[in-house]
Parts: sequence; structure tokens; C-alpha cells
Amino acid sequence: MGHCLGKSSIKLERPVYILSSAGVVGTKEGQGPLGMLFDLVGKDDLFGAENWEEAESVLQKEALRIALGKQGIRPEEVRFLFAGDLLGQSIASSFGLGDFQIPFFGIYGACSTCGEALTLGAMTIDGGYAELAACVTSSHFASAEREFRFPLEYGNQRPLSASWTVTGSGAFLLGKRGEGGARAKIMGMTVGKIVDYGIKDSMNMGACMAPAAAFTIERHFEDWERGPEDYDRIVTGDLGQVGQMALLELLQKKGIDLKEKHMDCGLEIYDTKEQDCHAGGSGCGCCAATLSAYLLKQLEEGNWKRILFLPTGALLSKTSFNEGKTVPAICHGVVLERV
Amino acid sequence: MGHCLGKSSIKLERPVYILSSAGVVGTKEGQGPLGMLFDLVGKDDLFGAENWEEAESVLQKEALRIALGKQGIRPEEVRFLFAGDLLGQSIASSFGLGDFQIPFFGIYGACSTCGEALTLGAMTIDGGYAELAACVTSSHFASAEREFRFPLEYGNQRPLSASWTVTGSGAFLLGKRGEGGARAKIMGMTVGKIVDYGIKDSMNMGACMAPAAAFTIERHFEDWERGPEDYDRIVTGDLGQVGQMALLELLQKKGIDLKEKHMDCGLEIYDTKEQDCHAGGSGCGCCAATLSAYLLKQLEEGNWKRILFLPTGALLSKTSFNEGKTVPAICHGVVLERV
Repeated sequence: MGHCLGKSSIKLERPVYILSSAGVVGTKEGQGPLGMLFDLVGKDDLFGAENWEEAESVLQKEALRIALGKQGIRPEEVRFLFAGDLLGQSIASSFGLGDFQIPFFGIYGACSTCGEALTLGAMTIDGGYAELAACVTSSHFASAEREFRFPLEYGNQRPLSASWTVTGSGAFLLGKRGEGGARAKIMGMTVGKIVDYGIKDSMNMGACMAPAAAFTIERHFEDWERGPEDYDRIVTGDLGQVGQMALLELLQKKGIDLKEKHMDCGLEIYDTKEQDCHAGGSGCGCCAATLSAYLLKQLEEGNWKRILFLPTGALLSKTSFNEGKTVPAICHGVVLERV
Repeated sequence: MGHCLGKSSIKLERPVYILSSAGVVGTKEGQGPLGMLFDLVGKDDLFGAENWEEAESVLQKEALRIALGKQGIRPEEVRFLFAGDLLGQSIASSFGLGDFQIPFFGIYGACSTCGEALTLGAMTIDGGYAELAACVTSSHFASAEREFRFPLEYGNQRPLSASWTVTGSGAFLLGKRGEGGARAKIMGMTVGKIVDYGIKDSMNMGACMAPAAAFTIERHFEDWERGPEDYDRIVTGDLGQVGQMALLELLQKKGIDLKEKHMDCGLEIYDTKEQDCHAGGSGCGCCAATLSAYLLKQLEEGNWKRILFLPTGALLSKTSFNEGKTVPAICHGVVLERV
């Protein structure tokens, strides 16, 4: 059974397996460098729904359906479901996943939610409370615009530091036993805390989130007595170009050189030179879909043996922004290894 | 260590202790029948803050500070914090609890969030991942009005089936060992699922949530091979008068008679005859503050030996409402016993 490690980590004695997963994305993501690797790419971004929020619910539904289908698992065999999204009151999840009728934990960590879901899911299985658990997160460019920014019709221009919310969802089926085949092993987690550097620019979320990522990475290395050399890749969620620079600089000051090992899902999912995505991709679906389509594939194929997966979230709302508040952030780390 | 029980439950072999707790509320709640039992009643509902959202953050901060203080626990001794509220992107929690610097899990289950927090907190401790964990939830009448309904200035009238969002927060410190004194024992949990009866009236959330409460109660009795006779009270979160009638009727049809044992926090926190609260209190803070101030006190004083605590949540947002969606609901059950 797992146990506490250092100040904020959990080390699992026996791994929890990612038995299967699915990544479902929109058209822009389908045209990106990982396009061929996703399980499903929408023909348009409405996915047959009547509005953007429903479309995001379809993303979640399809992702979970495909992930379960790959292992031939029926929803009633899954004991707990951990899910969340970026919308107010997490409606993409509530309306997307209700039909599965799986006992449900709604979670919110902004774009870090995938890391939070995997952490809680792994604890639930390792603790003996479930044989199977599922984790689903999503984001949708248009529903996020409605939730956080201007109506799309406004046609506003955005600064280059802004990120582009990924239309996508990732679903993961976690299990205790990996004999029937598994994509990767979860070996432990480092749970993030709320980090607030006082930055107020919601159009530069990379800069807001970089300190949270730096904190969790430093804490992880302390807790686990490890360094960058112990990982094939250290993969943040959606820092983008500006956030990546900030992260590398912050860690450099702490004597940690991440240059060779760092990768950011927000910079992988789009071709930042050819696709109009400004600083990179972001959103709950960004790192989730990238983990399913690309990162787990590298572990499966043996190109990597161990990675630290670090979804990053900016904990703002349009109300907090309009009230002149800062943008606090959080980042959760999950240690993934080749089976 | 705990283990799975039936379809949706977890039975703890050794209890997890609620070591201390605090209930912090606004003026209206202070004037209600439980007024004298709360740890802190605000002089006004702004709690010294500049706006309602910040005021709600203060509620959470004070509740956690008081709960920790009662056991002389410093924030850095608490390994994990589970928290949530009703606001978009859970900003009351993100801005209220960041200063404690405790590794953080944001959760969302609308007004069921207190049950979700206690469930995850208890699993975390029972699983050996923490010695101490804290759970905090809140709601604020005015921030909820801004989030969900009309601006207060509009002065709209509300139907009698509408509930009144409680201005309040409850914080709970959970621990593995109860030798130093504890308020109650958590013996197990039944995790709810999303239940959607197709009701669309957001001004009648009691009716929307009653089917979810009925489901969790029925499932709990099945999983635990128990009935109403095994509990001194079966306490729902915030069904109010309309929801209570619906719940009793739904269960009656299943052959479960809850009349003698049922209690609803939304009907306890206000004097529904004298105070203008229509169908009763609601909100993430309603059952949390009532649990801390009243329910745990009954267990401590030996008036009750065992209760089933069932926070209920309506999973709507103003966007889902405006798009004509139904109001799905969820309810989590926690078994609490006298120490």
C-alpha cells in the first residue's frame, strides 16, 4: 500500500495501472502535429450538439466510452468516476457523464484537473476502495470563451501571451491489475498547493502558472530525492511559450536545470509556428488528450521509461478577474512509468 | 483498512475521527434557531471584505482557522485540504484557503460538496496517505445570487419553493487518532451518482435533489444491509420543505418509511415560520455549518449514537439553465457515530 513521502507526496508500493485511455479532440487539434494519434477527431466542433457546452459534454462522453470499450469494460464495473472541466459548476461533466451512472466525484483544479483526477483515482485504487476507477477531463475553445472571455462574435484580438483553449477530452481507466494489458503505471504523486505570485493578467496564464509548476517540481525532487536526470521527460500541462520560459528561469534560480527534459503539452498539441494558437494550447483537455495520445504512447513504445506529468491550472474566474484579483495557480505531479 | 461494500459504499474497519470543526455564519443564520451554537457570527455579511465573493473567502478562512485552533494544529501539519464552494471556478476556496499553503484538492458537488470532502478526506486518512486532512465548504447568499440568479438590486420575488442560500462555512479536521479528543467518528461512506429526473425548475431545487437523496439512501441501506431503524437520524443537506415531502414520498414507494428519522439541515438552520427563507436554507455552507454546530453536538452529548449525513447538490449553472437543460443532482452519504 502507498504511503506518505516527504511533505506533499504519496509513493505507491504497488503501481496503479492506466489500463486504457482515449483522447477526443476538435478540428484544430486534429490538424495539429498529434492529429493522427487521437482516437476521435470531430468533423466540426459542435460534435452534433446544439451548443458549445453540450458539445463539450459529448467530448467527455465519447472519451470515456472509447476508453472503456478498449478494455471491454462496462460502466457498471467502474466503481468511481473522477471528472471535471473549466465551466462554471462543471456542467460539461455533470451533463456529459451522468448517463454512465457511475458513483461520481466532481473535482475542480482548472487545467490541473487531469492531474488531480489521476491522483485521487490512484489513491482510491491503491487504498482498496475500488478495482476500477475512471478519470475524465475536458475543455472546449468556444465554451471556455463564453465562460471566461468575450463572446466570439466580438472578434477581439488577443495578445501573443494568451493561450488557445484546446477542444478536447481525455479519459483514463485505472485499475489494480495490469495483467490484461496496460498503457502505463502510476508510481506516485506530488500534490500541489495554491501558489499566488500576484500576477493579474489573465491573458498571460503561462506566467501565472509557472510558479505553481516550479513549486511542485522542486517539492517533488525534494520529497522523492530525485532530480531531472531520473526522468526521461518532465511534462507540464499548458504553460505555453511564455510560461515555459518563466518555469525554466524560476527553476534555474533554484539550481535545477530542466532545459533538456522539459516538455509542455500546450506546445505539443499545436504547431505553434503554423497554427494560430499564440502562446500554445491550454485547458483541461490539453494535457489530458496529449497524455492519452502522445505521452502514454512514448512509454508504451519504450522511447521513455519514466516521466513526471504535471498538469497546471490557473484558478481564476471572470468574476475574480473583474474584481481585480490575482490569478493563483496550482500544479499536481504524477509519476508515470513504462509497464 | 477500509474496503468496498456493496455497489457504492466504503466501510472503514477503523474509524476516521472528526477531531474538531467550526461553523461560521452570517447575520440571518445567527438569528436562526442554531444561532448560539455557531463559532462565529458575522456582524454584517461582508465580513470586512470588499465584495461578496471575498466575504465568502473570509468565511472559509475563519472556519478553517478556528477548527485548527481548537486542536492546536498548525496548517503545515495538515497534509491535504479538500475544499469547494458554489461559485464559478470555486473562487471562494481558491482565494480563501491559499494562504494556509496546504496541498490542495478542489472539489465540486454543488451543495453536496461537504459530503464529497468528508468522503475523500476519510479515504485519504484511512488509506494511510495522511495523518491529518481538512475539509472546508462554504456558500454566501449574495455571491450565490450574483452567480446563479438575478442581481440583488433587481428585487425580484421568488416562489415559495425556492430556497435561501445560507451564508456560512463549515470546516472539519479529520485524523487517524482520536485519543486527543474527537467530535465524532466516520465509519463509512456511500458515494452518490448523478440522478436526473428531468426537472427544469431551478426555483425548486428541493424537488430536483430529492431523487438523488432517495437513490443514495436506498443504495446505502442495500449496501450496508441496514434500515432507518439503525440510525438515530437520517439528515439530508438542503432539500427544504418541498424536497422533504418529495423524498419521503419517493422512499415510501420503495417501502422505506423515513418519517420518524428524517431531518434536513435546510429546515434546521432557519426558523421557517418566522424567518423569510421560503422552502428552507440551501448552499454548500448550509449542511456544513449545521453539521459542525448542531449535528456533531448531538453525537457528542450522547443524544444520538449514529446518523447518516447526506449532503445534496443540484448540478446546474446559469448557462445550463439558460440553455433549457434539466437540473441533475447528486447526494453523498457519510455514516457518523458517537466517539
